[in-house]
Parts: sequence; C-alpha cells; structure tokens
Amino acid sequence: MLNLHCPSPSRWLEQVDANLDVILIDHAHCERKAAGCALKLLSAYVENQSLCKEMTLIVNEELEHFQLVLDLLNERGIRFRRLKPGPYGKRLQQLVRGKEPQRVVDRLLVASLIEARSCERFDLLRQHVQDPQLSEFYGSLFESEARHHSTYVRIAKDYAGDEEVQQRLSELAVAESEVILAGHDQPRMHS
Amino acid sequence: MLNLHCPSPSRWLEQVDANLDVILIDHAHCERKAAGCALKLLSAYVENQSLCKEMTLIVNEELEHFQLVLDLLNERGIRFRRLKPGPYGKRLQQLVRGKEPQRVVDRLLVASLIEARSCERFDLLRQHVQDPQLSEFYGSLFESEARHHSTYVRIAKDYAGDEEVQQRLSELAVAESEVILAGHDQPRMHS
Repeated sequence: MLNLHCPSPSRWLEQVDANLDVILIDHAHCERKAAGCALKLLSAYVENQSLCKEMTLIVNEELEHFQLVLDLLNERGIRFRRLKPGPYGKRLQQLVRGKEPQRVVDRLLVASLIEARSCERFDLLRQHVQDPQLSEFYGSLFESEARHHSTYVRIAKDYAGDEEVQQRLSELAVAESEVILAGHDQPRMHS
Repeated sequence: MLNLHCPSPSRWLEQVDANLDVILIDHAHCERKAAGCALKLLSAYVENQSLCKEMTLIVNEELEHFQLVLDLLNERGIRFRRLKPGPYGKRLQQLVRGKEPQRVVDRLLVASLIEARSCERFDLLRQHVQDPQLSEFYGSLFESEARHHSTYVRIAKDYAGDEEVQQRLSELAVAESEVILAGHDQPRMHS
C-alpha cells in the first residue's frame, strides 16, 4: 500500500532509543517542512484546482501535527530548536526531473514517498516506543500519513498515465530505499 | 488602527471597475502568498513558540480565504490563472534590513502593512462594489486582515521595544504609501 521498496533497518530504532529527544525535535521540523512542500506545490500548479484543494488540506493537517509535536516537547521540557537537516530530503529532491510534466510528477511522487516512509516509521515507533503517550501519539499520525501518500500519487495521475506513474514511483522507491539503507549518523526521522 | 500613512487613491477603484475579474484572480494569489509569507516566518523563527502558533493560525486562515476566492471564481466562470505579480510586494521586501533582530522586526512589520492595506481595500470594495455577494464577501474578510495586522505588530515587539517598533512601523508605512501612491498599470489588489 505504501509503495516502499524496503522496510526501515533495525539500526534506525537503535538511533531512536539513544536520541528520542532529537527525534521528536526533528519530527516537528518534518511536519513544518511537509506543510512548506505542499504549499510550494500549490503555488507552482495553481491551475489544478483539485491539487489546490488537497494541498490546502495537507498544509492544515501538517501544521496541526507540528503544533501537537511542539506541545509534546513543551510537556517534556525539551526545548524546540533548529537542527541541521539530514541528507534524506535533499537527496530525494535531486531525483526530480527538470522538465514539465515530468517535474510535477516527480515532485508529487517524492512527496508521496516521504509520507510513506513517515507512515512506516510512525508504525514502527508506535510498536517500539515504551512510553504509552508517545506510542499512542505515533499511532494517531499513522493514518493521515498513509492518506497523504495516496493523495500525492493520485494527483500525479493528473499529469501522466497510471502505468507511467506506477513505473516512476517504483523507480523513485528504489532510490529512496538506497538513501534509507545508507543511513546517516545524525539521528533524524528519516536517518 | 491600521497604521497606514495614506488612504488608497480613487484611481485604484477605477482600475477595479474596469478589471474586476483580474482583481479577483489576484486576490486569490494574495491569499496564497500571505500563507506562504507566514509559513516562511514560522520556519525562520521556530524558536519563538508564540510566533509559531500565530503563524499556524494565519496560514490556515489565508488558505481558507484562498479557497473561498477560488469558489467565487468558479461560480462566476472565471478561470484561475497565473498573473505577473505587481511590484508592491517586492518593493516592500526591499525595505527589510539584513541584520537580525532588525530583519525579523521588518519582516513582521512589512507583513503587518500588507495586511493593513488589504484590510483598507476590502473595506473600500465592500462599500464600492455593486454586486451584493461580492460586497458581503469583502466585508467578511475585513476583520481577519485587521486582526492579522495587529498580530504581526504584536510579535514584532518580541524582538524590539514598543517605541522602536512603532517608530519603524511609521517609517515603513511612509515607504508603503509611496509605493501605493505611485500606483501601477496592471490592475492588482495592491496596484
């Protein structure tokens, strides 16, 4: 359903265990960046009204999650701060082709894969994290990330045939899995 | 209350009368851009949690208005399309000083003046436009723009003293009035 090419390696959960505070801070940044990504797509493709509607909903939802994570950080006495971003987002953006309509298809599918990976990891966290409040929180986010994944894939089909979209999604999913399997020293939601 | 240095010249209402469709299209873009501006401020100053909260509310509200304008365009059979932006936003951005904390103060105050000008113009449109549905629509937006204006000014006071903020707001309002009085050939919300 999530179109991911590989599951997250167990190495990542070890990073989580050793750095839960940083993971939470990065999670807040991820929600903020996901809102920014959706708003950029809206601005770039304003002619597509259903895209505009869906992006509006996604921006609202991501910012709602952003606020929820900030509240969690506050409750736990963790100061929200800037973090050097990991390489995940940038590497995926580099896969986006330059010419339209390939560009919009790729931007949407990259967004769909980021949502899919978040969804997969929220599910892992839900099962793994001992803290019941946190576990429940991750569970509550799972569904919306899966929905956003599907929304992005569906909108990509406004710009290319079903088969072409599915083919490109598989290619990008392979590339995404390579970034994930390479991992990264800095503990992040997508390290 | 709005801290504007001059009222809109009557010339603008003549532009509106001759180009109401374009004004509506530009209005939708203004709402979208206002959401983008608030989200950029949130991302640039994440340490300020009350700023984050207020920007989240503003993004949501601006996108809600964006959708309302899109609905209006659809009802009237006006195709939403890209428009070459007028010079207003760019000229105001050029007034923003480069060094923090002056930079954040200016970014917030420029945003506050754009909201103030929108507010003043929605009030003019509400009184001027013959179409009762449109007139009511403009009236319904008036209050939120005034509120956003106050929010931006209030947050600026997190970064500078009351007097300094008020002094800078007056300077920027003079500069804003010069851009408004110079006007622009292309009919826009801020021409």
